[in-house]
Amino acid sequence: MFDYVTFLTDFGLQDDFVGVCRGVMKRIARDAEILDITHGIAPQAVTQGALVLERAIPYLPPAVHLAVVDPGVGSARRGVAVRAGEGRVFVGPDNGLLMRAADRAGVESARSLTNSRYHLAQVSKTFHARDVFSPVAAHLAAGAHFDDLGEEIDPATLVRIDLPVARVSGRELIASIIDVDRFGNMELNITGSEIDEVGLAPGDRVELRVALTPYYAVTAETYADADRGELILYEGSYGYWAVAINGGSAATLTESAAGDEVRILPAANKL
Amino acid sequence: MFDYVTFLTDFGLQDDFVGVCRGVMKRIARDAEILDITHGIAPQAVTQGALVLERAIPYLPPAVHLAVVDPGVGSARRGVAVRAGEGRVFVGPDNGLLMRAADRAGVESARSLTNSRYHLAQVSKTFHARDVFSPVAAHLAAGAHFDDLGEEIDPATLVRIDLPVARVSGRELIASIIDVDRFGNMELNITGSEIDEVGLAPGDRVELRVALTPYYAVTAETYADADRGELILYEGSYGYWAVAINGGSAATLTESAAGDEVRILPAANKL
Amino acid sequence: MFDYVTFLTDFGLQDDFVGVCRGVMKRIARDAEILDITHGIAPQAVTQGALVLERAIPYLPPAVHLAVVDPGVGSARRGVAVRAGEGRVFVGPDNGLLMRAADRAGVESARSLTNSRYHLAQVSKTFHARDVFSPVAAHLAAGAHFDDLGEEIDPATLVRIDLPVARVSGRELIASIIDVDRFGNMELNITGSEIDEVGLAPGDRVELRVALTPYYAVTAETYADADRGELILYEGSYGYWAVAINGGSAATLTESAAGDEVRILPAANKL
Repeated sequence: MFDYVTFLTDFGLQDDFVGVCRGVMKRIARDAEILDITHGIAPQAVTQGALVLERAIPYLPPAVHLAVVDPGVGSARRGVAVRAGEGRVFVGPDNGLLMRAADRAGVESARSLTNSRYHLAQVSKTFHARDVFSPVAAHLAAGAHFDDLGEEIDPATLVRIDLPVARVSGRELIASIIDVDRFGNMELNITGSEIDEVGLAPGDRVELRVALTPYYAVTAETYADADRGELILYEGSYGYWAVAINGGSAATLTESAAGDEVRILPAANKL
Repeated sequence: MFDYVTFLTDFGLQDDFVGVCRGVMKRIARDAEILDITHGIAPQAVTQGALVLERAIPYLPPAVHLAVVDPGVGSARRGVAVRAGEGRVFVGPDNGLLMRAADRAGVESARSLTNSRYHLAQVSKTFHARDVFSPVAAHLAAGAHFDDLGEEIDPATLVRIDLPVARVSGRELIASIIDVDRFGNMELNITGSEIDEVGLAPGDRVELRVALTPYYAVTAETYADADRGELILYEGSYGYWAVAINGGSAATLTESAAGDEVRILPAANKL
Repeated sequence: MFDYVTFLTDFGLQDDFVGVCRGVMKRIARDAEILDITHGIAPQAVTQGALVLERAIPYLPPAVHLAVVDPGVGSARRGVAVRAGEGRVFVGPDNGLLMRAADRAGVESARSLTNSRYHLAQVSKTFHARDVFSPVAAHLAAGAHFDDLGEEIDPATLVRIDLPVARVSGRELIASIIDVDRFGNMELNITGSEIDEVGLAPGDRVELRVALTPYYAVTAETYADADRGELILYEGSYGYWAVAINGGSAATLTESAAGDEVRILPAANKL
């Protein structure tokens, strides 16, 4: 039994996809509360979904964590449930979406969702969120046994995603944008040690190169540490370093998006 | 008494319209759970709203189904409640929005919302969702009697929407787009018999004409049956046939929108 | 103890910010229901947020009203809780966001959020909604004492926002757009007395000047009072006068946005 089903998808809220999944779940698990993490993952962006799920989990109560970004729906890719530490169970497609979060919580066992007793009577080829994953999540919340969901599978066989790794070359730090948020803040694949390696301290000026174009930024702790319109490089609230602009959108200014490379070079503190 | 009020509008989530309606309902019906179907219906798109409501209903628990897409708010159009089979009650404007869903569930009786006891004390001219429909839905959920909502009306007098019907002309199938979803998938007004009539089978190649421009597509079961970038014609998850593209947006590629005509012709299987 | 936490931000729903705050709150206050007002406030638009919160409050149940539009996060701006009439408590940054609503409900006392016992163990520099405001709101809902949140502060020292005031010059009414909604309706800072002052009655024709361009409109009660495509000037559902167009977007037609000036002049009734 679980109090909560958390829910993350790339469905957006324009259509009824999320609403219909909610309806399916409530018909099965009247007492479970559905907590939306987000439905704003870019369409079919499995890696972005995996990163967002991973960073959100520590702030969520133990739950069935339902996540669906599923470009391979209807193909041979497996549907899976993964039991992890902290009383968490992850449900979704076996395409890497679940595993950054699940590995961080500590995987205990996994099942392929082969027991159709926990699916809707009619399963479409293109909407397994509604027909398979939501009913499975709801049945788990309502007390179904994890081991009854389907065949046991070796957790080592579950698909994982390799992220691009930031690297230091001389005094240059070569990173990638892993997410751009609503405010245009650019989250990078840097978690701190690389910053130490190139020897950056708060208040230092840096040069950022995005698609060959150079920009100047200042290393700061929060937006208000910079002048209005000035770019800052700072440790974001989830532990990744990020680029932002005080009072504007850094991604719009630099015309950049998730996946783009950002090169960081220490610059003279006074120009 | 109802456990749920489901909620569908064209209000979007940018403004506080949906939030304020939620507040109005919770002040009246503390224990009712509000299930959002979607608030992403295109502004004033009554037909789209009616179609989305109809296809969502089978997946939702019995409920008060509140739906508001209401370009005629404040005019002589009636506000209505419609009791239907499966323990469902539909509440909203009498402009056709409710009736595809209500007729499918089986209409039992209808009331015009003339009893102001179930409205807010002050009723504006332009926001009946807040002042009339939400309070009526919440009072129903909290135990008000359907027959007390207002004057009985003949269900035959309720406004219905006629949808464009697909037709076959020689070997050509002439259809309309009834919805475009977030992924750019184009849902057509074809439910299967027309596909049989022109003799299409899985794997067949077809020519699609959208605004005179020809495209080639393949008849398939799911996205992964096609190569990346290839258009497919497939039976969508709600039973309507649809056009999609593996790894992209079919609506963007073909520059099409809801309401546009799509002509389908069998093509030679090998080019 | 509070049954509800209402929630208003400029976070949008594309990212996981709102979902993560929900998770933080539910871990602390299992039984509190979170009612989203909106998360669609324009990024960092404190004044718009304050206006939307103010107009929504009368329709919401007594609650902890959590609101975060916080361009100064991490700077010296205070985090505050404000106790007001009708059993309402407002929680958020001290930048004016809360005070139009709080003053209208009647401020009773205020606290600076200095007691870290009610914050997360780790507080970031850039996401106080997650680390400070959501936990405080949830602890209040779960029964924490208001006076235990931190140092008492003089409510007179809380930041307030001055809105532009409409004025009458001869027969001309000079107003500002305070909000543009999803439908393109332009809400003005006019609440009625100015309309009387320039002597407008229903059905009167007026000239609107937006950025020097003149448009004709008719004073009306609801959208359907005008012909399709005709601009109307009408009393909006929250008591502010507004400009709309029957069957279209007035803001798109006039290329206007929140903050723009609109001049209104009576015009001859027949052209």
